[in-house]
Amino acid sequence: MALIVQKYGGSSVGDIERIKNVANRIREYHDRGDQIVVVVSAMRGVTDHLIGLANQLMPIPTEREMDVLLSTGEQTTIALTAMALHSLNLPAVSLTGAQAGIQTDGVHTKAKIQNITPTQIHDLLDAGNVVIVAGFQGRTPDGNITTLGRGGSDLSAIAIAAAVKADLCQIYTDVDGVYTTDPRVVPNARKLEEIAYDEMLELASLGAKVMQSRSVEYAKKFGVVFEVRSSLNANPGTIVKEETTAMEGVVVRGASLDKNQAKVTLVKVPDHPGVAARIFRFLADAALNIDMIVQNISHGSDSPSTDLSFTVEKVDLAKARKLFDGLKSEIGFQELVTDEDVAKLSIVGVGMRGHSGVAARMFETLAEAGINIEMISTSEIKISVIIALDVAEKGLAAVHKAFVEENTTGA
Amino acid sequence: MALIVQKYGGSSVGDIERIKNVANRIREYHDRGDQIVVVVSAMRGVTDHLIGLANQLMPIPTEREMDVLLSTGEQTTIALTAMALHSLNLPAVSLTGAQAGIQTDGVHTKAKIQNITPTQIHDLLDAGNVVIVAGFQGRTPDGNITTLGRGGSDLSAIAIAAAVKADLCQIYTDVDGVYTTDPRVVPNARKLEEIAYDEMLELASLGAKVMQSRSVEYAKKFGVVFEVRSSLNANPGTIVKEETTAMEGVVVRGASLDKNQAKVTLVKVPDHPGVAARIFRFLADAALNIDMIVQNISHGSDSPSTDLSFTVEKVDLAKARKLFDGLKSEIGFQELVTDEDVAKLSIVGVGMRGHSGVAARMFETLAEAGINIEMISTSEIKISVIIALDVAEKGLAAVHKAFVEENTTGA
Repeated sequence: MALIVQKYGGSSVGDIERIKNVANRIREYHDRGDQIVVVVSAMRGVTDHLIGLANQLMPIPTEREMDVLLSTGEQTTIALTAMALHSLNLPAVSLTGAQAGIQTDGVHTKAKIQNITPTQIHDLLDAGNVVIVAGFQGRTPDGNITTLGRGGSDLSAIAIAAAVKADLCQIYTDVDGVYTTDPRVVPNARKLEEIAYDEMLELASLGAKVMQSRSVEYAKKFGVVFEVRSSLNANPGTIVKEETTAMEGVVVRGASLDKNQAKVTLVKVPDHPGVAARIFRFLADAALNIDMIVQNISHGSDSPSTDLSFTVEKVDLAKARKLFDGLKSEIGFQELVTDEDVAKLSIVGVGMRGHSGVAARMFETLAEAGINIEMISTSEIKISVIIALDVAEKGLAAVHKAFVEENTTGA
Repeated sequence: MALIVQKYGGSSVGDIERIKNVANRIREYHDRGDQIVVVVSAMRGVTDHLIGLANQLMPIPTEREMDVLLSTGEQTTIALTAMALHSLNLPAVSLTGAQAGIQTDGVHTKAKIQNITPTQIHDLLDAGNVVIVAGFQGRTPDGNITTLGRGGSDLSAIAIAAAVKADLCQIYTDVDGVYTTDPRVVPNARKLEEIAYDEMLELASLGAKVMQSRSVEYAKKFGVVFEVRSSLNANPGTIVKEETTAMEGVVVRGASLDKNQAKVTLVKVPDHPGVAARIFRFLADAALNIDMIVQNISHGSDSPSTDLSFTVEKVDLAKARKLFDGLKSEIGFQELVTDEDVAKLSIVGVGMRGHSGVAARMFETLAEAGINIEMISTSEIKISVIIALDVAEKGLAAVHKAFVEENTTGA
């Protein structure tokens, strides 16, 4: 007998038929004697409908009331899911986030979980119930309804799994698990049996859509082992957990391509203390998210200058260009060069740490494919390069073949 | 400056435009310095949609989960109403039934209010807010969501008005107030300026659709003065309050017609102790609601017998007939006679108490109109008669003319 937390997203509970499917899956686990806590999202489309109503009243609805409004979406799903289980003669009780003891701070629409008091969940489980909890929501210490923002239901599930000390947390979604790379781009991509938190985090930050970083970070912090798997079939998914020695045998866990980045270069920026700080303060104040930053050594001994490059999201490029056009004399750079026909190609793996030749092997692979590298950025377990957009998929395929399909150590 | 509770039903908040209208009305009161608590229902159609979803899962959904599901309807409205006020730059805060301190018993889908702790409402009012409360819902002492059943939002408003000691409670609906009779049947019907609780209760029990009896009873018990008025115009409505000496000057406040009753007569029922008790126990056990009961003196000295008549709802007539067909020998009556082509005509007024001639005047009026009376039942402030369905509206018009339009004392 195990204590399992299962999370079903909006597409898994998208209509009454899918809710019935979810109930049948829960029954399988219940019948083999497991205790089950189910975390559900709003049915697909419900949240957008509610936002649409709010926007007819205010372009930017007040955040406290937005939380009161949006939390009805998950509350609807918990009641319907409980009924679906009742129709199978399974005892089940629904709980809102507040009733489940999920306490958050008061930052409406993007609240942080402060703590979970799972007394009610345990009592209901001990009485033989499946417990259905509304994801994405909680309450402040003084009783206001809050929501957790993007990826909030995953976070609810991970946090509840930590609080109830679950044996396993299953994140049901519409993909089979975590892949070595995007199978739509590289047909040879394969599903991973397991992946380390840090690898998952790097993949999440690279735009792999499986999960938000905050949920993975929470799982890592509290040591919650979770499985990403499909609600549409019975295939095992990918287990996400703390890295093991065995994992280091694989140098590169996966490869990823992000086509949403654009490159900005400030040419001949005066190289004296504080200039870079001021540039990135301007960007932060304009709420522009920066990803890669590259600065090389400077040239010129009298008034040394350097080229400073960084990447922004493509949708923010016009805004960034306008910002720096107005700052040219203030900062004193010579020229602004931008390029949106680029992509960021990355490889990720905790095994990289022990293998100094991985970067060299990646650059060689790209060179053999005739692909020029425009920017390079590395972390302990990731190497990212900016390359031209029109050869990006070719580059991904080449790197995936070299590191994953041929499973070379890269050294 | 007054403290006012306003209740808006499902048609008054039926869509975003109507919610905006409600917000504008609230602003008028706010601008003149009143403190306002607003109680809202679910938007028209929302509750039916949710019931439809539940019924796709279970023919009779579990009641606890039905409450979790249905309470999202009012929660949606409170958030949208608060946003509508924010868009007018009015400070407003929404509260679910639980947050507003509405505590109920645990009888899901038809819970009774046990007490209200209005601390939160007072704090928010004192801070200058309009407070928007979800009608129809509350919470049990151990934190389960409950709903109050039919007419629940009216009850929420009346109970909150009692708890916060409001100066006035306004029930906004789609009619202008309480009329002397149904204006669709009698064009000369007129809106009442005021009516006593007991008169309102008799009218409610007679099928006047304005309000459920339980809300009026609650108002009477706690002395809550309330006004029934339209959300579609600015006309004053009808004030419902404890009767005053002045009210007794009017003998008949209103007249009403109920076409949903059918007459059942058990002919020659043995007249000995306990027979009537057994008959109505059978009816109660079959969950058949009885309205009027008439039994006259008995005949025959050896084995005395009597005729026993009562009315049931027309939809229950077949059930009643089947019940008594099976009990004929057990009870020992001679014959079962039923008639569904009847209607119940009633006049109501607290002023009747001091005027013994009212019944006589009513019967004379009907006789003059050539209408035969089949059954009679009276209470302290009401006289009801059963007459043939095809002359029922004619009878109503005659009685309304005699007692209301000509405003005779009836004595």
